Amino acid sequence: MNKLLVFQTDFGLDDGAIAAMEGVAYCVDLSLNIRHLTHNIPPYNIFDASYRLNQAIGYWPEGTVFVSVVDPGVGSNRKSIVARTVTGQYIVTPDNGTITHIDRFVGIEEIREIEESTNRLKNSEHSYTFHGRDVYAYTGARLASGVISFEQVGRLLKPEEVIRLELYGCHRLPDGVEGQIDILDVRFGSLWTSIPYEDFKDCGFGFGDDIRVEIFHNGSKVYSNIINYGKSFADVAINDPVIYMNSSNHMAVAINQGSFARAYSIGVGTGWNITMTKK
Amino acid sequence: MNKLLVFQTDFGLDDGAIAAMEGVAYCVDLSLNIRHLTHNIPPYNIFDASYRLNQAIGYWPEGTVFVSVVDPGVGSNRKSIVARTVTGQYIVTPDNGTITHIDRFVGIEEIREIEESTNRLKNSEHSYTFHGRDVYAYTGARLASGVISFEQVGRLLKPEEVIRLELYGCHRLPDGVEGQIDILDVRFGSLWTSIPYEDFKDCGFGFGDDIRVEIFHNGSKVYSNIINYGKSFADVAINDPVIYMNSSNHMAVAINQGSFARAYSIGVGTGWNITMTKK
Amino acid sequence: MNKLLVFQTDFGLDDGAIAAMEGVAYCVDLSLNIRHLTHNIPPYNIFDASYRLNQAIGYWPEGTVFVSVVDPGVGSNRKSIVARTVTGQYIVTPDNGTITHIDRFVGIEEIREIEESTNRLKNSEHSYTFHGRDVYAYTGARLASGVISFEQVGRLLKPEEVIRLELYGCHRLPDGVEGQIDILDVRFGSLWTSIPYEDFKDCGFGFGDDIRVEIFHNGSKVYSNIINYGKSFADVAINDPVIYMNSSNHMAVAINQGSFARAYSIGVGTGWNITMTKK
Repeated sequence: MNKLLVFQTDFGLDDGAIAAMEGVAYCVDLSLNIRHLTHNIPPYNIFDASYRLNQAIGYWPEGTVFVSVVDPGVGSNRKSIVARTVTGQYIVTPDNGTITHIDRFVGIEEIREIEESTNRLKNSEHSYTFHGRDVYAYTGARLASGVISFEQVGRLLKPEEVIRLELYGCHRLPDGVEGQIDILDVRFGSLWTSIPYEDFKDCGFGFGDDIRVEIFHNGSKVYSNIINYGKSFADVAINDPVIYMNSSNHMAVAINQGSFARAYSIGVGTGWNITMTKK
Repeated sequence: MNKLLVFQTDFGLDDGAIAAMEGVAYCVDLSLNIRHLTHNIPPYNIFDASYRLNQAIGYWPEGTVFVSVVDPGVGSNRKSIVARTVTGQYIVTPDNGTITHIDRFVGIEEIREIEESTNRLKNSEHSYTFHGRDVYAYTGARLASGVISFEQVGRLLKPEEVIRLELYGCHRLPDGVEGQIDILDVRFGSLWTSIPYEDFKDCGFGFGDDIRVEIFHNGSKVYSNIINYGKSFADVAINDPVIYMNSSNHMAVAINQGSFARAYSIGVGTGWNITMTKK
Repeated sequence: MNKLLVFQTDFGLDDGAIAAMEGVAYCVDLSLNIRHLTHNIPPYNIFDASYRLNQAIGYWPEGTVFVSVVDPGVGSNRKSIVARTVTGQYIVTPDNGTITHIDRFVGIEEIREIEESTNRLKNSEHSYTFHGRDVYAYTGARLASGVISFEQVGRLLKPEEVIRLELYGCHRLPDGVEGQIDILDVRFGSLWTSIPYEDFKDCGFGFGDDIRVEIFHNGSKVYSNIINYGKSFADVAINDPVIYMNSSNHMAVAINQGSFARAYSIGVGTGWNITMTKK
C-alpha cells in the first residue's frame, strides 16, 4: 500500500468530526498520508458523493484508499463495504450507491462487506451515529496501512448485492444529443451534463460550431439559445456563453467569467434536462 | 513526540493566515505532520473553541500538540499557556478559557505560561496582532518537534491561575433532566445539549421511549413535543424528530434528514435551555 | 528541494478539483508534502491571488514551490511561468499578474516559461480547461520533487515579458498619508490598506495618537472619524474602531470584535481610497 488515505464526507469543515476521523486513523498508523477530497458534499447527497469520487480517483496512484461517508442510513441495517477498482484503488463506504460512478466509468473488480465484529474502533459499540469515525476511517486506515488485507475486510459480495443509483446517461436525437444536468462546477456556476464527449462528437459537432442549447425543467423549456462550442472559456467574449468539454470528459455549458446556473436559475438532477442540437 | 501538530482557529480559510502559521512551523521542523481541526470557529467564540477541541482530542495519539487560537484579547496582557492533559497531549493557546472542556472531561495535569522572551518567532516583536503565527504556531512546532521540552515552555502555573469558562451542566428534574443547548452539529442542524448520556439514562429512559422535549429561550417556551429516543436518525421516519446520544456522549435532538435548528429557529448558548421529561 | 508544494486557487473546496491536482502530484512523487494556502480566492481575482501569496510566502522555507491557479485566461494563449524569488522559492502560475506583489515586496530573480511539450500531464492534450491539474500541479510537483530542475521548466523570460498588475501604493499628504483599501481580513471585516507602516510612521504618528480617517468611494466621502492608533484591537474598547499595523506591515482599520467593512459597507480595490491625517 502507498499509505494514501483520502476522506470525503458531507460533514463540512465547521466542527471536530473530520479531526476525530483523522485521529482514529493516526492511532492506527502514524505514517499514513491523510488527504481530503471534499467535505462539502451537500448533506445526504449520495449522487454527488459518487460523482466527486469519480472526478478525482483517476488521478491517484494505485493502492490509494478512499473513505467516502455520505450516510443518511447510519444506524440502520445498511451494509458497509469496501470496493476494489480494476485500477487497484479502494473505496470504503456505506452501501448506498456511492460506488455508482466509479463502477460505471472506472470498473469495480471486487466488493467486500465490512465485518464490524473485527473492523470497528474499540469501545465504540454504543456509538450509533458516527460510523465515519468508528467504522469507515478505522477500516480505511487499517487497510491503507496494511494492518489488514482486503480479504480481512469481510466476506465477498456478489455485484448484484450492492446498491447502485440509476444514471441518466445520454440519448441521441435526430440532430443532436440529450442528457441531464448532473452537477455544477459549484464555484463557477457551470453546468456539467451527463452527455459524454464521445456521444457529442459523434453528432458531427466541431470546435467553433454554433449549437442550439435548450434546457428543460420537468419538461418545460426554461432556456434556449445558440451557443458556440469552444475549447475553453477564453474562446468567447467575457460574459458570453460557451459549450465545452469539462475536465471529466463530459459536455458542459458556462458563461465566461460568469455563473450560468445563477444567471438562468438552473438546477441539477432529476427533472433538469438539456439538449444540444444542430442550429 | 509523534510530530503531530493540530491547528484550530477562528481565522477561516479565505486568506493566507493559516499558511503563514504552517510556514513558521515547517521552518522549525520539516518533518512535522501538520493537521487542522477546524478554522471555522465563529469569530471570538472561546466556548466553541473549547468544545471542538474536546470533541476531537480523545481520538488522537499521546504526544499530539494542539494549537488553538481564538484570541479576542491578542495584544492585551492575557497570558499564553501550554496545558498537558492527563492523557499526555498538549494544548497551546491564549489563557482565555479555551481549555475548559478538556479540563472538565479529559483532565489537565500541568499548565505552563509561555515565556515569550524565548518562545517567540525571531524579529516578530513589533507584531501585535498575530500571535497565532508569532507565538502559538512557533511554540507548538518547537514543542511537537522536540526542539523544546514542556519545561522549557515557561514557568508552572497553579490551576487556579488559569481562566475557565462556566459550564452549564445538567440538572435533574422530578421526571427528567434539564440542560442547555451547547452547540449545533452545524452542517445538519442538530442540537447538542449539555446533558450527559449518563444523567439521561439515570432517569430511566430507554431506546424507543417517547419523551417530552421542551425548549426555552430566556425562559419562554419556544418548542414542545413528544420525541422518540432512538439509536440513530434512521430509527425514525424521514423528517421526524429524534432524541439520540451524540458522538461525544451527550444527548442531542435532530430531524432525520432535516435541520432541527433551522426548522424551529433554535439558537445556542446562554438562555437556550432544554428539558427532557417523562411524557 | 524540501518537497513542500503549496497550492492556491479560486476553485473552492466543494468538488474534486483540488483532489485531482493532489493526485497528479502524488503520482509524480509520493513523498511530496502538499499544503494549501487558500482555495477561496474570489473567482478570477488575480489581485487577491497575488496578495495572498505575498502574505504567506515569507514564512516558508527556501525551496518551497507554490502553485497558484487563478486563471481566467485558461485555454487562451497566455503563457505559463515559473518564477524564482530572491529568497529561493518558486511560484508556478499563469502569466497574468499573479507574481505582482511578490515581485514588489520580495523580489524575483528569474522567470521561465513552462514548455508544455515536455511539462504537461501525459494524455492531457485534449483538456483545455484545467491547466491547474494538467500543467501547474504537474510541473510544480516535478519541480518540488527534483524530477526536473528550474532550467528544465523552459526558456528564460525577460522581466518585461511578464505581466504585472499596477499597485496603487501610497501617497504623502501635507498632514498624513493616502492609500487604497486593498483587501479585507475577510473573516473579521478589517480593512487592509496599501499604506506601508514605514510611510505611516514617517508622518510622525505614534501609538495612542488620535488620527482622522476618511474613506472615499469613487471620490465621494463615505466615512470620517477620529480613530485611535493602537498596537492591537485590545487597545480600544469592544466595538470601538482602531488603526493598527497588520500582520503584513501595512496599516489597517478594524472594529474591536466587530466588522468594520460590514458596519460601514466598505469595499475594496479600485475606487476605494482612505486617508489618515492629523486630527
